[in-house]
Amino acid sequence: MKVGNQNYRTIWVKRGNNKIIQIIDQRTLPHTFIIEALSTVQDVVRAIKDMHVRGAGLIGAAAGYGMYLATIEATAMESFDEYMAKAAKQLYNSRPTAVNLEWAINKQLSTINQQKTPKEKINAAFLGANEIADQDAIACRNIGEHGLYLIRKLEKEKKGKTINILTHCNAGWLAFVDYGSATAPIYAAFDKGIDIHVWVDETRPRNQGARLTAWELAQHGVPHTVITDNTGGHLMQQGLVDMVITGTDRTTYTGDVANKIGTYLKALAAKDNNIPFYVALPSSSFDWNIHDGIKDIPIELRDQDEVKYIAGLCDGKIKKVLLTPVESKAANYAFDVTPARLVTALITERGICAASESGIRSLFPEILKE
Amino acid sequence: MKVGNQNYRTIWVKRGNNKIIQIIDQRTLPHTFIIEALSTVQDVVRAIKDMHVRGAGLIGAAAGYGMYLATIEATAMESFDEYMAKAAKQLYNSRPTAVNLEWAINKQLSTINQQKTPKEKINAAFLGANEIADQDAIACRNIGEHGLYLIRKLEKEKKGKTINILTHCNAGWLAFVDYGSATAPIYAAFDKGIDIHVWVDETRPRNQGARLTAWELAQHGVPHTVITDNTGGHLMQQGLVDMVITGTDRTTYTGDVANKIGTYLKALAAKDNNIPFYVALPSSSFDWNIHDGIKDIPIELRDQDEVKYIAGLCDGKIKKVLLTPVESKAANYAFDVTPARLVTALITERGICAASESGIRSLFPEILKE
Repeated sequence: MKVGNQNYRTIWVKRGNNKIIQIIDQRTLPHTFIIEALSTVQDVVRAIKDMHVRGAGLIGAAAGYGMYLATIEATAMESFDEYMAKAAKQLYNSRPTAVNLEWAINKQLSTINQQKTPKEKINAAFLGANEIADQDAIACRNIGEHGLYLIRKLEKEKKGKTINILTHCNAGWLAFVDYGSATAPIYAAFDKGIDIHVWVDETRPRNQGARLTAWELAQHGVPHTVITDNTGGHLMQQGLVDMVITGTDRTTYTGDVANKIGTYLKALAAKDNNIPFYVALPSSSFDWNIHDGIKDIPIELRDQDEVKYIAGLCDGKIKKVLLTPVESKAANYAFDVTPARLVTALITERGICAASESGIRSLFPEILKE
Repeated sequence: MKVGNQNYRTIWVKRGNNKIIQIIDQRTLPHTFIIEALSTVQDVVRAIKDMHVRGAGLIGAAAGYGMYLATIEATAMESFDEYMAKAAKQLYNSRPTAVNLEWAINKQLSTINQQKTPKEKINAAFLGANEIADQDAIACRNIGEHGLYLIRKLEKEKKGKTINILTHCNAGWLAFVDYGSATAPIYAAFDKGIDIHVWVDETRPRNQGARLTAWELAQHGVPHTVITDNTGGHLMQQGLVDMVITGTDRTTYTGDVANKIGTYLKALAAKDNNIPFYVALPSSSFDWNIHDGIKDIPIELRDQDEVKYIAGLCDGKIKKVLLTPVESKAANYAFDVTPARLVTALITERGICAASESGIRSLFPEILKE
């Protein structure tokens, strides 16, 4: 998508130098736009661990390129395979909870192992990494096309009036390689000239909405307004929201949606006001084993200081300020689960389906057997 | 309530000097505890306007004392009555939307006008101001006693396990003269030795929960945990909330509750999880004219910078930091309306009633006639 009128992905091979991978360092957004070069597997490990890159799709792509950089380094080592195993382990440990990370590492290992010479391995890892990134971008673009159909329907109903879409957290292109999941239909509609406006939940405590989604939309030129997470219910009551689209970290095969904390509250408000609530996801986000999301999806409890402190720009520098009494405890649950009954439909790269076992099966019959 | 083991109200007459009124300057909480002296009506006007004091009950009490200080000043003026009229107008304009403000000013004017000599007027205004403050404190204490009954019921059901109460915004003693509305049952239960714990919604954008409610509870020794506004739904799903108590800025005679933005989302989640949702209020918060809260209660749209920037403690100083892209717009709706159907009951100084016209009539038959 666009940054300052130029097209970007979140990760790419440096033009003219195949041995350097470039990323957007997301830690300084929205205040500063920094492109960072990664030239070793250690660089990639650090970029994932310290959250220069985040989001399922992007972490997977970064791991793919990390494995490629590892093959270059491995040629100088005593044992190529041993070095690769070590690199894989380090990459895996950089964010053990990210499902796409392990998947990309294993995919690359298998690709590399099928080749004989170091040169062939390097080449295969390079193509493999590009393919992982491209597939992520294509899946998101397809989500955008399917979601566009839903927005077009609304466009007819609203007869040319602005379509207001609410989103929570950042399921934008910054979390993937391009387009994003929840934002893909938004970008598709905007690029087709449909009159849309996005309500951006700031998404406490880490403010991914206020920092990242708002920045993405601003750079691409999409009209948007940042709101506190408390605001969506009131907007829906007043007819100021036409649809909600969020992403998901994990969706059960029964349609329960684990996503950033607070998603459930917006789904309740959407239901109470008869507003469609959509969840956009690449199929890699499905958990094909879990039946009951509320009972069985573990919810990460993160450091309380993410609630007690917040960072922002002050006198040209990023500063962290204390928001609570120093002696008060805080609890920092990272996700919640929205039960399938509150989800109008899922938007996947294969199409739109009901948030139910049978709905999901209709799109993924080869995975979810009767 | 207690601050550092000493009992305080939010406003009081200085011991040994009747001509000085003291308040807690709430702007620097929770980081610094400052007691401020008000010795002129202008001091009171500034304290209300610049939000050294806030909250319906406290603003009313402050206005009462402001009128008293005005009588002292008026004796030195050419026309006592003219000066009082001017003082009343200035006090009124310090926060025109606060219902209690006008009520307290008019009550004091009427009290003062019944006296003849300046000395009598001063004396009557002094007693009148004390009475306004005392009445506010008594109403809140009664709310606490009635709410305690609900907590005691839960105590039996939970058989000695900790009772978890969630609250939103600050309807604490800092918003009144003492006890608070939503917090009154909490303090009453805590002081009786009941094992309670409070989930404190931080309450973006102005963070009254994280700053004020958390501070109050910490000072009084009540166990509590600050959470982001996104968190309540997840806690309720997981059985970690036994009841919700909030305050209200205005409640219709039909039971619709206007309160700090985000209250509606918590009420939806409470309903979805069969958790009682109570609203505590002194009867001065009833609006006896409005029938449909969602249609007819005007919702204040405040400055977008309250969403875009946040203040906190950094290196020993209060600093304001920017949270969003500088070019992104923000919308700042201050309140939302929770429809009566989501409110389990209202807790007033007269007792507990259903959030409905007939429920409210049962407690206030002389006001709400058939």
